[in-house]
Amino acid sequence: VSALATVAGVGTSNFGKQSLTAQELVAAAVGEAIADAGVDPRDIDAIYVGNVFNYAGTAYRALLAAGFADPPILTVESACASGSLAVHLAAEAVRRGDARLALAVGVEKMTDAMAGPIPTDPNDFDAASGMVLPAVYAMSATRYMERFGVTAEQLARVSVKNHRNALGNPRAQYRGEYTVEQVLESRPISTPLTLLQCSPISDGAGAAVIAAPSAGLAGPSIRSSAYLSARPWPEPSGRVWNFELIERASRRAFEDAGLTHDDIDVVELHDAFTIGELVTLEALGFFPEGEAAHATEEGATERDGRVPVNLSGGLLSRGHPLGATGLAQLAEVAWQLRGDAGERQLPDPRFGLVETMGGNVAGLSGNGCVVMTLERDDR
Amino acid sequence: VSALATVAGVGTSNFGKQSLTAQELVAAAVGEAIADAGVDPRDIDAIYVGNVFNYAGTAYRALLAAGFADPPILTVESACASGSLAVHLAAEAVRRGDARLALAVGVEKMTDAMAGPIPTDPNDFDAASGMVLPAVYAMSATRYMERFGVTAEQLARVSVKNHRNALGNPRAQYRGEYTVEQVLESRPISTPLTLLQCSPISDGAGAAVIAAPSAGLAGPSIRSSAYLSARPWPEPSGRVWNFELIERASRRAFEDAGLTHDDIDVVELHDAFTIGELVTLEALGFFPEGEAAHATEEGATERDGRVPVNLSGGLLSRGHPLGATGLAQLAEVAWQLRGDAGERQLPDPRFGLVETMGGNVAGLSGNGCVVMTLERDDR
Repeated sequence: VSALATVAGVGTSNFGKQSLTAQELVAAAVGEAIADAGVDPRDIDAIYVGNVFNYAGTAYRALLAAGFADPPILTVESACASGSLAVHLAAEAVRRGDARLALAVGVEKMTDAMAGPIPTDPNDFDAASGMVLPAVYAMSATRYMERFGVTAEQLARVSVKNHRNALGNPRAQYRGEYTVEQVLESRPISTPLTLLQCSPISDGAGAAVIAAPSAGLAGPSIRSSAYLSARPWPEPSGRVWNFELIERASRRAFEDAGLTHDDIDVVELHDAFTIGELVTLEALGFFPEGEAAHATEEGATERDGRVPVNLSGGLLSRGHPLGATGLAQLAEVAWQLRGDAGERQLPDPRFGLVETMGGNVAGLSGNGCVVMTLERDDR
Repeated sequence: VSALATVAGVGTSNFGKQSLTAQELVAAAVGEAIADAGVDPRDIDAIYVGNVFNYAGTAYRALLAAGFADPPILTVESACASGSLAVHLAAEAVRRGDARLALAVGVEKMTDAMAGPIPTDPNDFDAASGMVLPAVYAMSATRYMERFGVTAEQLARVSVKNHRNALGNPRAQYRGEYTVEQVLESRPISTPLTLLQCSPISDGAGAAVIAAPSAGLAGPSIRSSAYLSARPWPEPSGRVWNFELIERASRRAFEDAGLTHDDIDVVELHDAFTIGELVTLEALGFFPEGEAAHATEEGATERDGRVPVNLSGGLLSRGHPLGATGLAQLAEVAWQLRGDAGERQLPDPRFGLVETMGGNVAGLSGNGCVVMTLERDDR
């Protein structure tokens, strides 16, 4: 299997509620990615920006200030998967030969765009009647717990793990060690989900220089990348949440990469809520349906477990600036595969996986999902 | 020159400030385009949505209601050029063989997203200090008038022409015959631009079924399509407005199509303000710099002139629902080339051109521009 593209450089801002403007966040992430790749901004042939709520012009101004010439810029939106979609399109562009070097950028200055929760589409009657994202996830949590005999304590362990992982990530929004009891005693958001089981409102940016393999730059390679979109969730389905879309994207990503689940050494996935990590692990195929909670309790997704998940802290603790999330996930996996993950570094990871799910922000209105596999540069 | 793609069907909503939801507007446009093409929604392989201010989920729900299966959906934003960018990407997808049938959709429910003018990016200091779009266009109008000895009366003639054209378009937002004096006496917005020289806040949607030529469907073909983006305007330049980007896109579109300006029988272009039509005509190469105002006065862009421009009424009169505009322009040119333009029908047009300019909505933050050429189906 030949690589689609090389991740020649990555960069991120810090994540959190912060006074930096969207433009400053982009400048930080892009500056780091460009320096990391050691390329000249003027050699970038195409720029893909993922953003949901801010002005595309924000990124644009930062890019111009960073010395870019006039590359075609394309802004894409697929809710929470917007940043990963930007990476996917950059990889496709270099694979097709449309670009030698492409830049993927993700940014979200959520505190500019909303005072509290993500606002809902005024024409979305489901959302208006209460079916906002925490409620949808809460319902799938309830169903999951009932069907598979999972307790609130087991669900909370995902939050405990990801917050603990974030202790090693100086850019994470929330770092603090919590017990299961503390997670369960935090403010209820939508039962059974408590505050510490929900990803926060965040500001942040991420960037990656994506190079054609023929450019000969060093860095982990993107071995496969699948982007699919599908019907709204909850889908009419006998299963919880939106397994089917993630399953299909995962199957394609593994097939295209010629890899099995046992090959994967590090995973960053979409834990917008604790239940999200569990059902996503199952949909990706790492555990049979109904077993991820038990496996989490037994430590299978810890740093020293069978499949380390969200070592960055994940969306729950690193933060979830929508458009930036996919780039933050990619950066973490790239750093792990390069041995640059600091305190979070795994001993010897070779293959990594990134998954991002974009349930449209208004609530129930169609999905996008990106799954990509990455491989260490062994040259 | 072989065609990139076939415009197998087009559809639009009515344009204006209206009570229909964004979802209902999309349903109207998509339903018409699908029926026009005579295809089954389940055979659509990819969907590209152009939108700036609304939720992508809005279009998504309408598409699902219209009977689409689960095609990959990609939402793109390039300010006013978002809809044309969706068409461009659909054409690229079928040309590359990634899809046999693609759907391009544009929608903007501006009255949902803003009470008055387009809101500005809170971090855009230029916009905050008054450099909003009408002011930028007004400055280029002042410069253009001064440099080329053009009067306010000559500028106003663009508005008179396009409003008169809209009399024949039952879907246009504003239909009314105005004199030069009435245009100049309408409320000042940013001198020298008066109300009737500025495109309105609009709600609307458009859609097009874009087919691979090998699919054998009837309809005008897209002979070339160029999408470029570039630095913010006003660019540091000795010329007015952002000539350079439109010029480069135009050159590429004409070269790829193997056509000259004399071949073009019908043009829909981006007259967001009266001055926009003039500088765009020059940047596209239809007139030498500084001559479009005089040519307009002499009738060269009228229905029976050398190059009929904005027979639909243009953005000024048909309306300018940002994401939908490119689809509305494409539909008008397709109808003209098919002989389906009703009262607006030209006698025997063979080649058409669509141009859309996306100055980013926050003000001065980077541009996108699409120029495409179309050819009548003579089979």
